[in-house]
Amino acid sequence: MEAEAAVDYLVDERSKAQFDIDAMKIIWAGGKHEFEVSDRMARLVASDPVFRKDNRAILDRKELFKNTLRKAAHAWKRIIELRLSEQEASKLRFFVDEPAYTDLHWGMFIPVIKGQGTEEQRKKWLPMAYRMQIIGCYAQTELGHGSNVQGLETTATFDPELDEFVIHSPTLTSSKWWPGGLGRASTHAVVFARLITDGKDHGINGFIVQLRSLDDHLPLPGIIIGDIGMKFGNGAYNTMDNGFLRFDHVRIPRDQMLMRVKQVTREGKVVQSDVPWQLLYGTMVYVRQTIVADASCALSRAVCIATRYSAVRRQFGSQNGHETQVIDYRTQQSRLFPLLASAYAFRFVGEWLKWLYMDVTQRLQARDFSTLPEAHACTAGLKSLTTSVTADAIEECRKLCGGHGYLCSSGLPELFAVYVPACTYEGDNIVLLLQVARFLMKTVSQLGSGERPVGTTTYLLRLEHLLQCPCDVQGAEDWLKPDVVVQLFEARSARMTVACAKSLSKFSKPEDGFMDLSADLVSVATAHCQLIVVSKFVEKLQQDIPGEGVKQQLEALCSIYALSLLKKHLGDFLSTSCITSKQASLANDVLRSLYSQVRPNAIALVDAFNYTDHFLGSVLGRYDGNVYPKLYEEALKDPLNESVVPDGYHEYLQPVLKQRLRTARL
Amino acid sequence: MEAEAAVDYLVDERSKAQFDIDAMKIIWAGGKHEFEVSDRMARLVASDPVFRKDNRAILDRKELFKNTLRKAAHAWKRIIELRLSEQEASKLRFFVDEPAYTDLHWGMFIPVIKGQGTEEQRKKWLPMAYRMQIIGCYAQTELGHGSNVQGLETTATFDPELDEFVIHSPTLTSSKWWPGGLGRASTHAVVFARLITDGKDHGINGFIVQLRSLDDHLPLPGIIIGDIGMKFGNGAYNTMDNGFLRFDHVRIPRDQMLMRVKQVTREGKVVQSDVPWQLLYGTMVYVRQTIVADASCALSRAVCIATRYSAVRRQFGSQNGHETQVIDYRTQQSRLFPLLASAYAFRFVGEWLKWLYMDVTQRLQARDFSTLPEAHACTAGLKSLTTSVTADAIEECRKLCGGHGYLCSSGLPELFAVYVPACTYEGDNIVLLLQVARFLMKTVSQLGSGERPVGTTTYLLRLEHLLQCPCDVQGAEDWLKPDVVVQLFEARSARMTVACAKSLSKFSKPEDGFMDLSADLVSVATAHCQLIVVSKFVEKLQQDIPGEGVKQQLEALCSIYALSLLKKHLGDFLSTSCITSKQASLANDVLRSLYSQVRPNAIALVDAFNYTDHFLGSVLGRYDGNVYPKLYEEALKDPLNESVVPDGYHEYLQPVLKQRLRTARL
Repeated sequence: MEAEAAVDYLVDERSKAQFDIDAMKIIWAGGKHEFEVSDRMARLVASDPVFRKDNRAILDRKELFKNTLRKAAHAWKRIIELRLSEQEASKLRFFVDEPAYTDLHWGMFIPVIKGQGTEEQRKKWLPMAYRMQIIGCYAQTELGHGSNVQGLETTATFDPELDEFVIHSPTLTSSKWWPGGLGRASTHAVVFARLITDGKDHGINGFIVQLRSLDDHLPLPGIIIGDIGMKFGNGAYNTMDNGFLRFDHVRIPRDQMLMRVKQVTREGKVVQSDVPWQLLYGTMVYVRQTIVADASCALSRAVCIATRYSAVRRQFGSQNGHETQVIDYRTQQSRLFPLLASAYAFRFVGEWLKWLYMDVTQRLQARDFSTLPEAHACTAGLKSLTTSVTADAIEECRKLCGGHGYLCSSGLPELFAVYVPACTYEGDNIVLLLQVARFLMKTVSQLGSGERPVGTTTYLLRLEHLLQCPCDVQGAEDWLKPDVVVQLFEARSARMTVACAKSLSKFSKPEDGFMDLSADLVSVATAHCQLIVVSKFVEKLQQDIPGEGVKQQLEALCSIYALSLLKKHLGDFLSTSCITSKQASLANDVLRSLYSQVRPNAIALVDAFNYTDHFLGSVLGRYDGNVYPKLYEEALKDPLNESVVPDGYHEYLQPVLKQRLRTARL
Repeated sequence: MEAEAAVDYLVDERSKAQFDIDAMKIIWAGGKHEFEVSDRMARLVASDPVFRKDNRAILDRKELFKNTLRKAAHAWKRIIELRLSEQEASKLRFFVDEPAYTDLHWGMFIPVIKGQGTEEQRKKWLPMAYRMQIIGCYAQTELGHGSNVQGLETTATFDPELDEFVIHSPTLTSSKWWPGGLGRASTHAVVFARLITDGKDHGINGFIVQLRSLDDHLPLPGIIIGDIGMKFGNGAYNTMDNGFLRFDHVRIPRDQMLMRVKQVTREGKVVQSDVPWQLLYGTMVYVRQTIVADASCALSRAVCIATRYSAVRRQFGSQNGHETQVIDYRTQQSRLFPLLASAYAFRFVGEWLKWLYMDVTQRLQARDFSTLPEAHACTAGLKSLTTSVTADAIEECRKLCGGHGYLCSSGLPELFAVYVPACTYEGDNIVLLLQVARFLMKTVSQLGSGERPVGTTTYLLRLEHLLQCPCDVQGAEDWLKPDVVVQLFEARSARMTVACAKSLSKFSKPEDGFMDLSADLVSVATAHCQLIVVSKFVEKLQQDIPGEGVKQQLEALCSIYALSLLKKHLGDFLSTSCITSKQASLANDVLRSLYSQVRPNAIALVDAFNYTDHFLGSVLGRYDGNVYPKLYEEALKDPLNESVVPDGYHEYLQPVLKQRLRTARL
C-alpha cells in the first residue's frame, strides 16, 4: 500500500473556520476545568495499549468479555495509582468506552444504596463498594416485567422467626433478566422484590443480596445465575454480562432491606420512616439527567465522523479538478447539519438538567416538593426525546457515510448498537412521553383552579395569548429572532395541548380517552419537549459567550435546530394555524442560507468536541482525514485474510467447482 | 426450566380472525403455484439441520464464513439431487437466508453476461456458470467511487499487438472494494473499467476477468485480492466475503470484453453494435424490481415478529386478570399497523413491478423506448422508497419488542443489519430520488410541448385540475373512498412538483437550482413514489379478490397505509392546501377506528405470510407464542455460560476484589 503520509488532509477545511475553536471547546466541555480533565483523561486512555478497541469486532464472546474484565481492572489500577479524583475516575471510565460491570457498580448499585439505604446501611456497604471489595449490580427488570415495575413478581417474604427475608422467584417470568454485570461479574445485587409480611403485599422494595462467594466466586446456594446471551452488534453491549437470576428461597438478614423510606420492624410490621418517599425521585432525575448528557455525547461522535468523512469523500461533479466533496451537496447538508445543531442543543439542555437536578436536590432536602412533578416530567421527556433522536441520528450518520459506513471500521455500526438500548432502559421512550402528556393534561386542567404551572410549563400561564397570537414573521430575517421562534414553539405546544385536552374531555371515562388518544398524547409531549430544548438553547445564548465568532456560530446552530424541527413537524404548526404556508416557505429559504453559513465552519464545529481518534474509533472520522489507506489497513486485520485460500475451500468450494458434489461430505 | 408444552399460546388470537387465511396466503404469495413452491422450499430448508441459523451470532468470522460455504454447497447439492426447477432453486436459496457468494453468482454475474455479452460470449461462459464450474462476481464499486460509476478509475487498455486488454488499478482509490463473493470465493468477475484504446478513453465497460486458478484457487499473477473486513451486525453480511481487488497490469484476451453494445475490433477501433444501449437499462429495472420484492419480504418478517410478540407480551393494566397485551395499546397499534399495511402495500407494488419489467422487456425487443425513462424513474424511486421505509421499520419493530428485541435471539438485530445496505447498494437512495425528481421536472416542463406523460406520470395530464381541486372529504367515511384518496395523493404530488419547478425557474443556471433545492426535490420525488404505491394498492383491490373477508381486510390496510402517510407528511398536504385542518383531524379519527378493525385480525394477517419459525429466526416471533422458556434456552447456549466462574476471574476480578491490584499482571 501507499506509504503513510503524516499529512492533515483536512487542513484546508480547518483554515476556513470563522470562530475561535479553543473557546468553543471550552463551551462544549462546560468550562475550563472540565475541558482540562476531559482532555487529560482522554489522552491517558488513548495512549494506553490495554485500552485498544480496534479488535472488538473480531473477538468472540468469551475473549471479548475477558478483555473487558481486563480493561476494567486496569482502569481501576490506574485510578488508584494516579490517585484520581472522583471526577477524573469517572471521565477515565467514560473514555475507556466499553460497557462493563463497573458501569452498574458505580452508576446504579452505589447510588441506590446511597439513595435508599439508611445511614447505618450506607456506613456498612458503601466503603466496601467504594473499594470494590464487593461488586454490585441493580436487579430490577424481570423476564416478564420491564416498564411496569409495580408488576414485578419476585417476592421477599419476611420470616419473623429467623428475622430474615426469603427471596424467591415464584415463576419463570419472575426471573431477573437484563441487569448488567449480573451474569458473571457481580458478587452482590440490589434486588427489587415484593415485600411480603404476614401474608400481606406491601409493594416493591430494594434488598441487598449476596450472589456469589467472595472466596471462589461461585453462586451461593439457591441462586441460579447466568448470561442472557448475545445482543445487537459487534462488540457493543456484548462486553457486558447482562444476566438472568432466579432465587430458590434465598435467605438474607432483615437489615439488608433498603429501609430509608419504608421499614420492617423486628416483629414484621411495615412502617414509613420520616424520610419522604419523594426523595426516591431524586435518583431517577439524576440517572435520566446523565442519560441526556450521554445522548449529546453519542450524537456528537456520530456527527463528527460523518462530517469529517463528508469533507474527505468526493463524488460526482467537479471542484478544482476533483469530484465535489459530498459535504457541499445540499442533500447532505440538510441531513447532517440539523444533527450537528442537535448535538449542541442536547449538550446545553443536558447542562441545564444538571442545574435542575441540583435545584431539585436542594428543595427535597428542604422538604419543598412543589417543583418535583414538573422536574420529573421534564427529565422523563428529555430522556425520551434526546435518546430517540440520537439513536436515529447515529444510523442517519452511518447512511451519510455511504457504503463505507457499513464497515465496522467506520465505528458507526458499533456506536449504533451500543446506543439504542438507551431508548428502552430507564423508562421506555413512549411510556415516558405518555407520562409527560398526562402531566401536561393535568397542568392545563388545573389552570383555572389557581395551581400555578412552574418551571418549563410556566408558558402555559400565557395560554390565552398563545392560543391566538399570530406568528411575527414578515420577512425571512424574522426567522432568526429567538423570541419569535420560542413563542412559536410555545404556541404550537400550547395549542396541541389544549386540542388534546378538549378531545379527552369528550370521553365519559378519562382513562378510555387516555387509551384511545395515546398516539396524539405522544405528539403533544414531543412538542412540549422540543420547546424545552429550543428555549434552553436560546437561554444559553443570552449568557456571556466568550471567543471570537463563537456566539454567531451557536446562533446559527440554534436557528438550524429550531427551523429544521419546524420543517419536520410542519403539519403540527400548520394544522394549529401557528404559521402560514408562506411563512413555512420563508423558513425553508432561511434554513438553506444557514446551511451555507455553517458549511465552512463544519469541520471546526466537530473538532470542538475534542474527541481523540481512539475515542471516535472510526477510520472515516480520523482527525487527519487519511481515510482510504487506513481502510485497507483495517481490512487486512480480518481473520479471513490470514490465508489466501479460505478455510473450507477443499470441503465446500472445490467439490462445487469440480462437479464432485455427489461424493462430498457436507 | 419449565417443561415445554406443545401449546399454541396464540390460538385465541387466531380464532378472532374475520377472513379466510388460506385465501390470503395465496394473495400474498402471488398465486397458488407460487404459494405451493414457496411453502415446499421453506419446509425443505427448515427441516435440514445443515441450514440451522441459530448459532450465527456466536460463530467467529472464519467459522461463520466456512459455514456459509458449507450451506451454499449443500444447497447446490440438494438442488441437483432433487432436480429443482430454476424457480424452486431460487426459492430454496432464498429460504437458506444467509448472504453468500452464490447471490452474486446467480443474481449479478450471470445476468450481466446475459444482458451485456454477445451471443458467442453467452454460449461460452453461461454453461460453465450454470454448472458452477466457475464462480463469478460483479466488480464495479471502487474504494473511492460508488454512486458515480462514470468516475471509476480502473483501466482496461487495449494492446493491439497482442490483441489483449491490460486491466490495471492506477491508484489506491481505484481498488475494487465491496463486491460480494470477491474476497475469497469467486474464480471470475465481471470487472467494470475505463475502456482505453489508442490513448482514448471510451467510458466504462464490463470485462470478464479470471481471478483465481481453477486448480488450486490461488489468485492469478498481478491480482491482489482479499476480504474488506467485518461489517455491521452479528452474522448478517459477515457470512459474505465482500472483497477488495487490485490489478497490476493483468492481461485478458480481447473477447473477454462484454461486447453486446460496444465493441472493440482487432485493430482497436471502438464501434457501436446494432444493439441499442437502452437494453442495458433492462437489467437495472430487473435488479431494482427484485429489491422491492425483497423489501416487502424483510418488512413482513419484522412485522410478523413484532405483531406476534405484541400479542404475547403483557404490561400494565388488566385484561381478564392478566396485564394488558401490548398490542391493545393505541401507541403500539399506531406504530405497528402502518408497518403491517406497508408490508402488504410493498408486496403489491412489487408484483406490479414484475409486470412492468416484462412490459419494458417486450417493448425493448420491439425497439420501443418510449416508456423506458418513466419505467426507469419509477423503479429507481420505488427501490429508494421501499428500502428506506423497510430499514427504518425493522428497527421500529425491534423497539416495539421492548428490551427483548435487543437480544440476538429476537432475530431483529440481524435482520436490520443484513437489510440496511439495501439503502446504499444499487443506487444510493437519495441519489435515486434526485433522479426521479429530475425526471418529474422534465415531465412537467414538457407538458406544454406535446410530450405526453406515460405510465405512473399520466396523472400530470390533469395538472390544471389537480392544482385546484378541493378534497372531497365531508365526513369521516369519505376517507375510506379509494378515488378520494388517490386524487388527494395526485394533487399533493402535482402541487409539490409544480411549486418546485417554479422555484427552479428562478435560477439563471438550472444546475444551480438543482443543487440548491435538492432537499426539496427529494420531498417531491417521495410524494410521487408514495402516490404510486397507494395507486397500485387501490388497483389491486379493483381486481377480483377471492376468499371470505379477504378484500375487506386489504381495504382496511390500504386505508391505513394512505392515511398514516397523510398523517406523517401532514405538512405537505396542508402547505399545498390539498386538505384542511378539519379534514386532517377526521383522517386521524378514521385511522383510530381502522386500527380497532385490524386488531382482531392482526395475528392472522401476519400468519398469512406463511413464514416458518426457521425463516423468521426469532424466539419472539415463534408461531406458538411460547416465548419465555425459549429465551432461556437460547441464553443458555451462550459460550459465556459454559463455566460458572468466568474465564478471566483469576486474572482480572479476584485481584480487584482482594485488593491485590498492585501486583497483578494486567
